[in-house]
Amino acid sequence: MRIKLTLTILAALAVTAAAEEGMWTFDNPPSKLLQQKYGFTPSQQWLDHVRLSSVRLNDGGSGSFVSPDGLLLTNHHVARGQLQKNSTPEHDYITNGFYATTPDAEIKSPDLEVNVLQSMENVTQRVQGSALNKSDAEGYKAREAEIAAIEAESLKQTGLRSDVVPLYQGGEYWLYRYKKYTDVRIVFAPEQQTAFFGGDPDNFTYPRYDLDMALFRVYENGKPIHSTDYLKWNAKGVAENELVFVSGHPGSTRRDNTVSQFIHDRDSREARGLKLLQHRIAVVKQYATQGPEQARQSASLIFGLENSRKAAEGRLSGLLDKDLFAKKQADEVDFRRKIAANPAWQQQYGGAWTDVDAAIAKSTLLEPQSLYRRSDSTLSGMALALVQYAAEVTKPDGQRLPGFHEAQLEGLRFRMASPAPIYPGFEIANMTGALQQAVEQLGPGDEWVKAVLQGKTPAEAAQYYVNNTKLRDPAERKALLAGGEAAIAQSTDPIIQLARRIDPISRAMQQQANQQVNSVMAQASQRIGKARFLVYGKDRYPDATFTLRLSYGSASGYPMNGTIAPYKTTMYGLYDRSASFDNKAPFDLPQRWVDGKSKLDLATPMDFVMSCDIIGGNSGSPVINRNADLVGLIFDGNIESLPGALVYDGSKNRAVAVHSAAMIEALRKLYGAGKLADELEGK
Amino acid sequence: MRIKLTLTILAALAVTAAAEEGMWTFDNPPSKLLQQKYGFTPSQQWLDHVRLSSVRLNDGGSGSFVSPDGLLLTNHHVARGQLQKNSTPEHDYITNGFYATTPDAEIKSPDLEVNVLQSMENVTQRVQGSALNKSDAEGYKAREAEIAAIEAESLKQTGLRSDVVPLYQGGEYWLYRYKKYTDVRIVFAPEQQTAFFGGDPDNFTYPRYDLDMALFRVYENGKPIHSTDYLKWNAKGVAENELVFVSGHPGSTRRDNTVSQFIHDRDSREARGLKLLQHRIAVVKQYATQGPEQARQSASLIFGLENSRKAAEGRLSGLLDKDLFAKKQADEVDFRRKIAANPAWQQQYGGAWTDVDAAIAKSTLLEPQSLYRRSDSTLSGMALALVQYAAEVTKPDGQRLPGFHEAQLEGLRFRMASPAPIYPGFEIANMTGALQQAVEQLGPGDEWVKAVLQGKTPAEAAQYYVNNTKLRDPAERKALLAGGEAAIAQSTDPIIQLARRIDPISRAMQQQANQQVNSVMAQASQRIGKARFLVYGKDRYPDATFTLRLSYGSASGYPMNGTIAPYKTTMYGLYDRSASFDNKAPFDLPQRWVDGKSKLDLATPMDFVMSCDIIGGNSGSPVINRNADLVGLIFDGNIESLPGALVYDGSKNRAVAVHSAAMIEALRKLYGAGKLADELEGK
Repeated sequence: MRIKLTLTILAALAVTAAAEEGMWTFDNPPSKLLQQKYGFTPSQQWLDHVRLSSVRLNDGGSGSFVSPDGLLLTNHHVARGQLQKNSTPEHDYITNGFYATTPDAEIKSPDLEVNVLQSMENVTQRVQGSALNKSDAEGYKAREAEIAAIEAESLKQTGLRSDVVPLYQGGEYWLYRYKKYTDVRIVFAPEQQTAFFGGDPDNFTYPRYDLDMALFRVYENGKPIHSTDYLKWNAKGVAENELVFVSGHPGSTRRDNTVSQFIHDRDSREARGLKLLQHRIAVVKQYATQGPEQARQSASLIFGLENSRKAAEGRLSGLLDKDLFAKKQADEVDFRRKIAANPAWQQQYGGAWTDVDAAIAKSTLLEPQSLYRRSDSTLSGMALALVQYAAEVTKPDGQRLPGFHEAQLEGLRFRMASPAPIYPGFEIANMTGALQQAVEQLGPGDEWVKAVLQGKTPAEAAQYYVNNTKLRDPAERKALLAGGEAAIAQSTDPIIQLARRIDPISRAMQQQANQQVNSVMAQASQRIGKARFLVYGKDRYPDATFTLRLSYGSASGYPMNGTIAPYKTTMYGLYDRSASFDNKAPFDLPQRWVDGKSKLDLATPMDFVMSCDIIGGNSGSPVINRNADLVGLIFDGNIESLPGALVYDGSKNRAVAVHSAAMIEALRKLYGAGKLADELEGK
Repeated sequence: MRIKLTLTILAALAVTAAAEEGMWTFDNPPSKLLQQKYGFTPSQQWLDHVRLSSVRLNDGGSGSFVSPDGLLLTNHHVARGQLQKNSTPEHDYITNGFYATTPDAEIKSPDLEVNVLQSMENVTQRVQGSALNKSDAEGYKAREAEIAAIEAESLKQTGLRSDVVPLYQGGEYWLYRYKKYTDVRIVFAPEQQTAFFGGDPDNFTYPRYDLDMALFRVYENGKPIHSTDYLKWNAKGVAENELVFVSGHPGSTRRDNTVSQFIHDRDSREARGLKLLQHRIAVVKQYATQGPEQARQSASLIFGLENSRKAAEGRLSGLLDKDLFAKKQADEVDFRRKIAANPAWQQQYGGAWTDVDAAIAKSTLLEPQSLYRRSDSTLSGMALALVQYAAEVTKPDGQRLPGFHEAQLEGLRFRMASPAPIYPGFEIANMTGALQQAVEQLGPGDEWVKAVLQGKTPAEAAQYYVNNTKLRDPAERKALLAGGEAAIAQSTDPIIQLARRIDPISRAMQQQANQQVNSVMAQASQRIGKARFLVYGKDRYPDATFTLRLSYGSASGYPMNGTIAPYKTTMYGLYDRSASFDNKAPFDLPQRWVDGKSKLDLATPMDFVMSCDIIGGNSGSPVINRNADLVGLIFDGNIESLPGALVYDGSKNRAVAVHSAAMIEALRKLYGAGKLADELEGK
């Protein structure tokens, strides 16, 4: 359970924003719009170079190569998980930052996988063809099997990570092949307080003064990789209104959803999700108050959860905005009228909305179980994955549960082998909190609750499982992976026993969801996606899917709170905001910045905003100019951008980036990292 | 016409804001609330000292005495009119600022009257008694006559300026006596660009970085006045959440208006007023484009009009806010239910709302004439005043038009004698614009339009009147004042002839408004005001009336745009905001601030906000701590405060002030005004 949640949090975590509309796939760039608006048409060479310089970090963010020797630039808040996993009470890299002055000092990320997109292939006919003339449920199974087969074939043929990606709500399916790196070492990170200056209050807002950066170096066969596909550093940055691009991996948008899905999100899903987040934050914060070491252990999760909460609040405010809702409705009315005007279209696609509504009705019934049957425990999540792995790998690939297909196993094994520390006290606190909420929301008679508690209280159960399992040891997990069904069946580890009890319940839930919701929704959405091509043509971008996209826009301010927000901020502003709050947290400056103030040119640009359309997952994306030079580093969206997950409204949506000049100024003048700055600037 | 408008603009101009509710009269301070919330009760001595240190500037703002030798602190934007009137193409004190290094160099304000409140006397019985058992129309006349008599008697007895002020919508009437000063000399003003950094975009917003200050010195009999009633300067300012007070003259609020008045404001009055302002701004800005001298002449009016426009937009947004409207409705429902629950009350007061509605209906019909019969010309306004003066002074005081009562004549003569320059080209441009709009809105057949144009086009008419009048010369105006009805009747000055034609039309309008609207409204409002005392008691504050009020609150930030606005800003922020806009206007810094940057301690607090309830007219008010030390200078309200004119909502409303430390830092380090700073700090 934890694995899934972590991905969800981190995808949401990253950035959420929007503005000059469109998150375009690299096979279908907005060349016409770019030529019209900015007199620029990216060449194929330009597109290939940018694509191969762009990186996906599977912790939930984006990044880019910024030197010929594998330096990878991303956000501090994307690197945060790996920094936390390498930290100890003695070496707290979150609080104090980290800089490897020599290659030997670079530290390995325990479980970070990064991907570089090598190719894109349209496999729509094969995937959709597999479900032809089948019922929703049968078609769903057939598509899943076909996708697994395509991925397995591709992996075998190319050795590349191979993912089939549904785009345009299943109107198209594409095979994306990635070069995968798992030896990724930390080179530099500033103090958390510099990266995340202003804390939760300033998160998702602008004007901003954060140095939210981190540098990794990517290794292969024990050596740094070498490539010409990296972005040249441009410390001059951009002028006001200059054309810029963002190349990154927006996580998820729901802009092509129906009005009924929008209403369901508004009235049920988002509100419930927000309440859940608030509960989790209370639980984790309570743990953090127990002592400095507890605070250290829980800092990353608190950060992630608060980030998710603020993003959810922003989406909810968008869902509740009457103007946005009117726009959403008007768009759907136009679409459906145009379908209705063509009898053939109406017959083939007109009924899809009714199917969506039926699926929503079923999903509402399943929601409490899918939401509250959770343990918020890393160990419990790993145990369930081990139990299911043993069973699934004995089946033909096409019949396995999602996550256990042949092409996905290497990634699963990598995560299971992670040496990242797991803290028992923290596990117990999280699990207790989750089980308490499950009892409250589902009642003590719920079969999942009974299977977990077995007569114990939530606190007793959590202590029992966490204190008696050996799964904290990666070797133990590896042994169970290798031991197959027999090892799982014979295990007396109490958390494996728990997973065995939960497994059938989990499978039944999955099957019910597939039959009643997912299969119906997939088929209906695919019909709507196809109809949209017929009505509006192919000059469109698909909803975000945590795959590589290109956004464009200009560095420009916007109307804010009765006045204008400037297109950039400066280091003066960092000192102003800190002094304005009498240097109280979260507006306190690290001592390095207090002591080093006179070394800095305070007029140096710090952060800037642009009208590029981005969303959570874009965190760490490079901002480039028309020469594909790196001019900035995306780390956030402004508060006005949060509803962009649902409906795009370009007047005030802005993406927020660290300025290329600020990174160089700080590295050289405050962090004694002139050598690193030289490497970035190619000096 | 111009005189009236100028007052309207300037009252609106000043500040508009709200927060810790209440603008309390000095006879009824909120001692209970203060004791409860802050453990502080102001003594009578404290109240008297603060009152006698507070100053009203009849250009439309507030101020305070800040030295034993008559130094008067107010805003640059309150002093702006007098700076403009003293400026010439050669000495532009608006652009370049002004500092009198010696007493001889202090320059006289041509027509600034300042008042210090000496006493308050409740005259409710006498005023209300005069109208007892009379019809609305007869009662209205009787009250006007009684008020004129009280004022004339008081002036005769005391020699003090004597104003009868209706409070609580006429629920009470008070006689306010003022010591009046007319020899007020300019000592210091910074450059406009320092005082009004950020221009129209930043106006009515926060965070802010303005040094909106000016210093006058008040003289009597050719010598600076001496007094112990001045506020001691405290350059430390306030700590976060510290108790502060604002003592000043809020101009006008409409919080006690009925829901029907609120709706009328929303749907008719404010929308029309805003359109008118937009038209005027376009006219004056067009004139400003004709050359640097035209730009200089029109700068103050553009400033005032844009300020009024932004305030009107803010009020309109409050009027359109559904939550504020719901609060307004709920308050009235509660009030009327409580009246209805008491049969005697219901009989006496229950019908007042119907009378208000009737008056609104009539006033809507009269609105176009009262709005568009205007010439926007200083000369034309003076001419009408001269014509009416000659006729009115021959009548018994109680029967005169408002503005011409015995107690008001000295002020009128002072304004007529003003040596302030009047620019013909500017007069023609303004008058042409106003007449064009009058023709458009009222049609060429309107009797006022016909009387003004007499067959000419608006441009021809404006040129004819302005180019041929001698009224620009104060001596000419004085001669007509002295010459009485004969001089007016014999005058061949074309603008006096125009005023003679307009006079009867103006009188007829005034009479119609009195009979159909003002008298009905006055009587109904008075009943509502009395009923409010019965229902809610006397622990209330009256709507603002440009009379002295005390507000209290704390220096505190507020939720803003997804994050928190700090309680103060610093000089770092000034340089940040300027550099963030690449130093482009209106975010450009005067050369003095560019060159002098290194002399400043940039951590010096610049501006700050507090939860005190203020509104336009409070501009220039002192902010004091519980020792009555001066810690700041009110100059604005934040954007969230603008609806405070209509409904108070305390969550985000803040008053914005210049910090006492910023003024001293700038005077000493940038303006070479250490001597002045010493006088302020009592060194």
